[in-house]
Amino acid sequence: MKILVYNRKNSEVWTSAVRNAFPDADVRHWVEGDCHDWLADYAVIWQPPAAFFQQQTQLKAVFNQGVGVDSLVSLESLPADLPVFKLRGVGMEEYMSDYVTYGLLHFYRDFDLYRQHQSDKQWQPHRIAQKSDWTVGILGLGVIGKAVAEAVSHLGFPVIGWSRSEKTVQGVNCVSGKEGLDHLLRESRVLVSLLPSTPSTHKLLNQETLTKLPEGGVLINGGRGDVIDIEALQVLLKSGHMRGAMLDVFEKEPLEDSHPFWNNSKVMITPHIAAPTPVAQALEQIVADIALIEQGEMPPAIDKSLGY
Amino acid sequence: MKILVYNRKNSEVWTSAVRNAFPDADVRHWVEGDCHDWLADYAVIWQPPAAFFQQQTQLKAVFNQGVGVDSLVSLESLPADLPVFKLRGVGMEEYMSDYVTYGLLHFYRDFDLYRQHQSDKQWQPHRIAQKSDWTVGILGLGVIGKAVAEAVSHLGFPVIGWSRSEKTVQGVNCVSGKEGLDHLLRESRVLVSLLPSTPSTHKLLNQETLTKLPEGGVLINGGRGDVIDIEALQVLLKSGHMRGAMLDVFEKEPLEDSHPFWNNSKVMITPHIAAPTPVAQALEQIVADIALIEQGEMPPAIDKSLGY
Repeated sequence: MKILVYNRKNSEVWTSAVRNAFPDADVRHWVEGDCHDWLADYAVIWQPPAAFFQQQTQLKAVFNQGVGVDSLVSLESLPADLPVFKLRGVGMEEYMSDYVTYGLLHFYRDFDLYRQHQSDKQWQPHRIAQKSDWTVGILGLGVIGKAVAEAVSHLGFPVIGWSRSEKTVQGVNCVSGKEGLDHLLRESRVLVSLLPSTPSTHKLLNQETLTKLPEGGVLINGGRGDVIDIEALQVLLKSGHMRGAMLDVFEKEPLEDSHPFWNNSKVMITPHIAAPTPVAQALEQIVADIALIEQGEMPPAIDKSLGY
Repeated sequence: MKILVYNRKNSEVWTSAVRNAFPDADVRHWVEGDCHDWLADYAVIWQPPAAFFQQQTQLKAVFNQGVGVDSLVSLESLPADLPVFKLRGVGMEEYMSDYVTYGLLHFYRDFDLYRQHQSDKQWQPHRIAQKSDWTVGILGLGVIGKAVAEAVSHLGFPVIGWSRSEKTVQGVNCVSGKEGLDHLLRESRVLVSLLPSTPSTHKLLNQETLTKLPEGGVLINGGRGDVIDIEALQVLLKSGHMRGAMLDVFEKEPLEDSHPFWNNSKVMITPHIAAPTPVAQALEQIVADIALIEQGEMPPAIDKSLGY
C-alpha cells in the first residue's frame, strides 16, 4: 500500500505518525515537484496545493488531517468522485468544549470586567447573574458542536443548538432553518459559532444577524473566520450592543499586525488553538477507515456539495 | 419568634429575605447601640461586632450568612455553648466550581500566555498539554471542595484532595495529614486552596510548602487569604518556580492600592466573588434548621474548637 502525506507546517510529525500506524505500507512525504512517477493509493493531507491532485491520479481516498475541509473542497483539481474523509471526533471535541467553557465563564462571571478593574486597581465585586438568563446559542451541531452543547448544558446554562438539518441532542433546544437561526439569535446571550466555511455560512454573522442578539451579547468563534463579518462585529462592540468576543479563527491567519482587534480590550484573540488535531487519535481513525475501504466497504465521506 | 439580622454591607437584602421566609416572626435589623431591651431567639448574621453577643443573651442559635465562620468564632463575646450554624451547600459550591474551572483552564490552555501575546500582537500557538500531566490538588474537601473536585474530575484532570480527617470522594485520590499534604504538593500542577481560616491553616502555604509544587505550578485561592504567605508566593512567582496565581481572597480586603500584585501580570485578582451566598437558598436552609430546633432536634453545628 502506498500512502502520501502532506502538511505544510507539520510534515515530519504527520509522516512519522503515518509510518508508525502503517508499518507495512510505503509512506512518503509529498513536496511540490516531487514524486511524479510514484502514485499513491491513499493521501493523508492538510491544505495541499492544486498540483497535488493533478499529479496523484490513482488515489482511492483522501484523509483530511482535521475537521475543516473548506480549503480542500475549493480545489478545482480535486476529482469529484474521489472520496474525502474528515476527522470525526478524535479528541477535538474535548478541546473545543474546554475552549468554549473558558470563554463562556470569562464573560458570565465578569472576568472581562475584573481584568479591567485589576489594571485600574479597583476592588469592585459584581453580582453573579442567573444562568437561566444566559442562554448559550451554538451554531453547528456536528460531533464538536454536540460535545460543546453537552458541556455547556452540564454547567447549567440553557442551550439552543442550530444546524442545517434538524438534530436531536439531549438537554438542547435544537432548531434549524432561517427561522430557527432567528430564534436562536434573539434568545442567546452567548453565541458560539462552530460552523464550517461554506458558501452558505460565509458572513452569516453580519450586521443584520448579530444585531438580533440581546444587548450585552457575546460572540465566541471557534469555527471558521469567514463566517463573521468582522467589520460588523467591530461596529457592534464599539456601540456597546455587544459586550465582547473571543476569536480563535480569522479569514486571514495570522491576523495582520495592523488589525484593530489586537488592541481592543473587548476582544480576546487566540491563534487558532481551540481544537487542534490530536495526531495519534486521528491515525487510529484513519487506520480503521482504510481497513474498511480495503475490505470493500465505505466509511462516511464528506458531501463536497455541502462543503463538510 | 424573634429573629435579629445583621450584615455590615447587605442588611436590607438580608432583613427583607428573613422577613419573607418567616412571615409570622418578629424580624429586626440590628444596629450597634439599638435593641437593648429586645432579646432575640435566633440571629442571622455576618461578621457582627463583639457588642452583638454582649447584648443578645437569650439566643438559642446563630446562623452565619456564609460558609466562613472565622471572624465569628474569634469573638470572645460568643458564648461557648451557643450553637452556630454555617451555610452548607446552598449554591456556593456551583459558584466555586465555575470559578476554579475558569482558573484551571486559564493556565492549562495557556490563556495567560495568549493574553500576553495579544498585547504583543504575537500569533504564537502552543501545543495543548495532556490533562494527565496536570494533576489538580484541592485543599479542603467540605461541601464546596467536594463539588470542585467532582467538577475538575469531570473535565478529565487527575485530582488529589486533602482534608483534616480522611474522606472518600469518587474519582478523587483523597489524602490527609502532613504526609498527605506533602504528597499532594509534590504531585499537583495546580493547587486549589479552599481552606477555612483557622490557627492550623494560617500561612500553611508558605515558602517551604509552595516550593514543593512542581516547576510551573499554579495557585488558585478561593478559600481564605491568610492561608497563603503572600510574600513567599511573590518570591516564587518572581523566580519562575511558580507560573501564576488566581487570588480571590486576601488577609486585608480590599487589597491595598500599593500591593504589587495589582500590576503583576502573573496574578489574576478578583474581589472576593468566587462563591457569594445565594440569599434565597440560604434562607431555605435556615428555615429548615430552625424548624428542627423548634421541634427539639439539633442540625449539625460548627465545631468552634476547629473553627469550621
